[in-house]
Order: sequence, then structure tokens, then C-alpha cells
Amino acid sequence: MSDFPNSEFDLAEVELSQQRLHGKVHRTEIITSTSLNQQFGCELFFKCEHLQKTGAFKYRGATNAVLQLDSSITGVATHSSGNHGAALAAAAADRGLAAHIVMPENSVQTKVDAVKAYGGVIHFCEPNQQSREQLLQQLIEQGLHKVHPYDDWRIIFGQSTATAELLEDVDGLDIVVVPVGGGGLTSGACLAVQASKQDIAVIAAEPAGANDSYLSLLQSKRITDIQPDTIADGLRAIIGARNFVIMNRYLDRIILVDDAEIRDALGLVWQYTKQLIEPSSATVVAAIAKHPEVFAGKRIGLILSGGNADIKRLLAGLIPQTLAGVKTQ
Amino acid sequence: MSDFPNSEFDLAEVELSQQRLHGKVHRTEIITSTSLNQQFGCELFFKCEHLQKTGAFKYRGATNAVLQLDSSITGVATHSSGNHGAALAAAAADRGLAAHIVMPENSVQTKVDAVKAYGGVIHFCEPNQQSREQLLQQLIEQGLHKVHPYDDWRIIFGQSTATAELLEDVDGLDIVVVPVGGGGLTSGACLAVQASKQDIAVIAAEPAGANDSYLSLLQSKRITDIQPDTIADGLRAIIGARNFVIMNRYLDRIILVDDAEIRDALGLVWQYTKQLIEPSSATVVAAIAKHPEVFAGKRIGLILSGGNADIKRLLAGLIPQTLAGVKTQ
Repeated sequence: MSDFPNSEFDLAEVELSQQRLHGKVHRTEIITSTSLNQQFGCELFFKCEHLQKTGAFKYRGATNAVLQLDSSITGVATHSSGNHGAALAAAAADRGLAAHIVMPENSVQTKVDAVKAYGGVIHFCEPNQQSREQLLQQLIEQGLHKVHPYDDWRIIFGQSTATAELLEDVDGLDIVVVPVGGGGLTSGACLAVQASKQDIAVIAAEPAGANDSYLSLLQSKRITDIQPDTIADGLRAIIGARNFVIMNRYLDRIILVDDAEIRDALGLVWQYTKQLIEPSSATVVAAIAKHPEVFAGKRIGLILSGGNADIKRLLAGLIPQTLAGVKTQ
Repeated sequence: MSDFPNSEFDLAEVELSQQRLHGKVHRTEIITSTSLNQQFGCELFFKCEHLQKTGAFKYRGATNAVLQLDSSITGVATHSSGNHGAALAAAAADRGLAAHIVMPENSVQTKVDAVKAYGGVIHFCEPNQQSREQLLQQLIEQGLHKVHPYDDWRIIFGQSTATAELLEDVDGLDIVVVPVGGGGLTSGACLAVQASKQDIAVIAAEPAGANDSYLSLLQSKRITDIQPDTIADGLRAIIGARNFVIMNRYLDRIILVDDAEIRDALGLVWQYTKQLIEPSSATVVAAIAKHPEVFAGKRIGLILSGGNADIKRLLAGLIPQTLAGVKTQ
């Protein structure tokens, strides 16, 4: 952790990253829902990162990292439950680099397919943090350049641009709510809010079944020995070292939401916005549904982090069983 | 059919309806997908009527009808598998009118809930055309004003505004593709294209399991004795008399797509646009996938007709069974 700043973080890097990514990532739109505003008694502004390239905010950090690589580097590697993997594969392919992605063997099929579609080489591992890190380390030792999914300054500042755009596009926000997995988006949100010099609270929504960030901030040290178990497959990662330091200093609160609450929130967002977000993204709405008193009357920016839900499972649910086995091609 | 024009349809009514609806319906956006364009070898422009008020284009026709009602009318009635019912209920509520909706008992739960949420009074019937019409007739005899879901000039011209906006917002279209159920959207599309005086083909996509329009145009007479059986629940209605006359004169082609093809297309749209359209809307993409030779190299406008998929079934598919029974509230 020699690259940690001693006192203050380099907040100017938020804007530098915005400049670096200008024209290379989508400036995603902000949507609102009168029905959801009425239901929760507050004003919600959804930043649509599920409409980002590769279907998730992860493309910001991956692109920010790849654009800063030394020209001697010919390939990158990472571990990812899917969205960072697809994003890194796509960002690497744009520069003609190889991308090797370590994925838990229980990853969502849609996400596995996406990594392949972007030209990434997949290495499956057991679904735990130790197995992820070990296999990634082996790839690094073979000469690939590591781009950690969240515990990397290039990634953190890349993700900060999502919140920076949100703050530019919506005036007078009181609170920003983001989902927290490894902490890339959340620590980026903290830095973007600090850089904006606005008085805006940052709240993270975390699955109760993957509450490593919650426990870490509670005990003021990184807790890494939990086994994540949640339907929010994008949030099963464990809080990173750099992410912890930032969140421990700047994050206002973490709200835990259980899988049933995430599922209910997912249904609400699908119904009222018609946006096909994935379960991880619904945590931010679940947090508001769980603690309406925190949010009542406020102007709230929320980041819809991704839209890579498991299409095959969605179809299987919607379409009658008699059709489930029909082959058409 | 005494209100049929003898020779030409009053195409000026397309623009008059646009003026009448200005500010009262959403001017929905047009979206594109590089991935889908590459996959099909043509340029697709999707008109997002799933983002229309009440989640479907039906709100256009319903509003167009309600805005022209005599002030002596205190209540309206219709039959609908859901989207027209919700649209009419919402449009009527805006004017302080009662709305009574005849719905097939196998309607999608999300659509039943929507009609209730907009204040509509639901009357369930057997899932066939005769039962729909009979129960509606009883309501009309009790003094309610009938607003047929598609066989009504106010509805047809209301729906025409979706295509009219599409033609205004995208230059140089070669083809417009719309889903066909009872024919409101399709006949409206035909009239909008005629009114535009542009040389644009109109193609309708129809479920093979509800091929009444296809058979009607083939035999040059309305075929009404089929029993619709398709996952595209919004397209189970039977072609209307006014709709038939327009489509028989102006529609270029109907492409039949079976349920498996609709399901595959639905998955593609979900995956690449992240827009939660319902099965009926996917027929237009299924038509392109089925006959790529018709569309290759062309600029194609498609109307995504609605986004009221069955949320509970979607959730049941995505979330593991162990969670399916969890009550949270």
C-alpha cells in the first residue's frame, strides 16, 4: 500500500479522469419516476449506468486503467463476478490488448457470455475471495498486468466519474446512494462528492448477506473473512484496502438490505422505470424503502450500477414451462 | 360501419391528433443498439412506447378518445387484455370519469394491478372475443360510453401519433415495423405513413398463434373465429373492422413469428437495450430475425409497444426458489 497518500487524496484526479474518459464512455442519462417519488416521499434521480457500455459503471474504471497503461504491456488480468471482467475485456480489446478474467464458477451466465463476447479469456475459480486472488496471482506471475476490480486508484477514480456526472447534472442533491461490493463505486462516490465541495451525504446500500463493508466500518478495520451469500451477484466481492480507507473517512452510512428486500425493490424499479437493472442495482432503492425516514423530503441521487441480469432465468420465469425446452435455432 | 369514409381516410386527423395530445402524452425517445444493428445488418430505431404513460402506446388512443367526449358522459367502458384498460382508466381518471374494464380472466397480474391502480373497475370474462364483447355490451347498455380498444377512429388516430413522431424524429426510414393485435397501432401506422407522403413500407409482426390479421389480409375479409394462443398477451385481440379496411389497403406485409421466436427476440432486446419490454413488443425484432433478407441494409423504425411484463413471474425466474416464498412486508 505504498501508493497511499499520507494525508489527503488527490481529488483533482476526479476531474482528470473525467477528461480522460470524455468521449470514451457514455455520459449516461438521469431518469426519474413520479410513481416512485410519490411512494417514497422524496425526489429520486437515477443515474443510468446500466446503459453504460458493457451494461455497467465498471467500464469507466476499466477504461481509465487501460488508458494509463505503459505501451510495453500486452495483456491485462483481473478477477470479477462478471461486470468488471466484461468491462476490462472490452476496454482492453479497444486497445488491442489481451484480457484474462478469473470468474467464480457460479457467475451469472449472461455475464460469462459477455466476457467471452468481448474477447476475454475466462479462468473459472471457486466462489470465494481466496480462490479468486490465488488464481489471479498465478496469471500475474505469467506476465499479465493486474487491474484489480476495485482496489486500484485508476479504477476508483474511473468510477468516481459516474458520481461526478450525477452531481453536474442534478442540482441541490442532499444524498447520493450507491451499492457497495468491493467499494470501487462507493469510494469513487466519496471522492467525487469531496471534490465537488458540496454538502452531500454519501450512503452505501449493502446486501446483508455480504456485509463486509458494514462490519469493516463498524470495527474500523477491514473484515475480509465472510462468505458472501446474496442474490446481488455483483456485490459479492470483499472490501478493498484503498476503498476501506476512503470509505472509513468519508462514507456517512451503510444500510444493510436482505435478499427479499432487494427482490421487492427490483420489482419496483422494473415496474415503474421499465429499466432492466440487475439485482445489485436494486439495493439502493431497497435502502430507501427500508429507512424512509432518512430520505423523506430529500433530493437523492442513486446510481443504477448495472443491467446484466440473467436473461435466460428471466425468460424461464416469464414464459410458460411448455415453451422452456423449445429449441428454435 | 356508417362512419367509414367512402373513398379516402381523413389523413389530416393524424396531425390534429398530434396537436390534441401535445403535452398530454410523452413524446417518447428513440433508442438504438450498435450490437443489434451489427447482428441484423440494418439500422434499427426503436420508438420507446414502453416508456409512455401507463407503460404502453395505448395511452395515446385512450387520451385522444377521452379528450373528445361530450361533457354529458360520466363513464367509459372497454375490453382489454390490460394495456388499453390501464390507459383508459388513467385517461378517464384525468378527467374525473369512471372507467369500467372487461378483462380476460387469464390477464397478466401486473396489468390487472395497473388497471386497479389507475382507478378502473374490472369485470373479468372468459378469455375469448365473444365473451369480451358480450360483457362490454352489457356495460354499454347500462349507460357507459364505449371506447373500443382499437376499432374506433379516435383510438386509431391516437395510435397514429406514435408513428408520426417516429417519422419526424428519424429521417429516411425505409420500413416501419409494428406489432399487430387488434390493429389499432398498425392501422394508425399506415395512416401516419400515408399522411407523411413518404415512401415507407409498413410491416406488421403478428404471433403465429394469433394470426387473424394474416389470414384476414390473405383472404381479403375479416377472419374472427380463431382462438388466440400466444405468449404475446397484448396481441391476443382479433382484428377490428376499421382496422381491417385500412390494413387491407395500405399494409405492405405481415410476418408471422412463433412464441419461441418471440422469446428469443425478447431476450435480445432485454440484453442489448436493457429496456424491460413485454413479449408483444419483441415481435418486431422477431420478424427481423426471421426474415433478415427483407431488412438488410435498410433504415427501420420499430415501435416497442409496451413494457408491462409480468413482474412477479420475472422475479420468480431470477430469484432462487428458496427465496420465492419469503414474505417481507
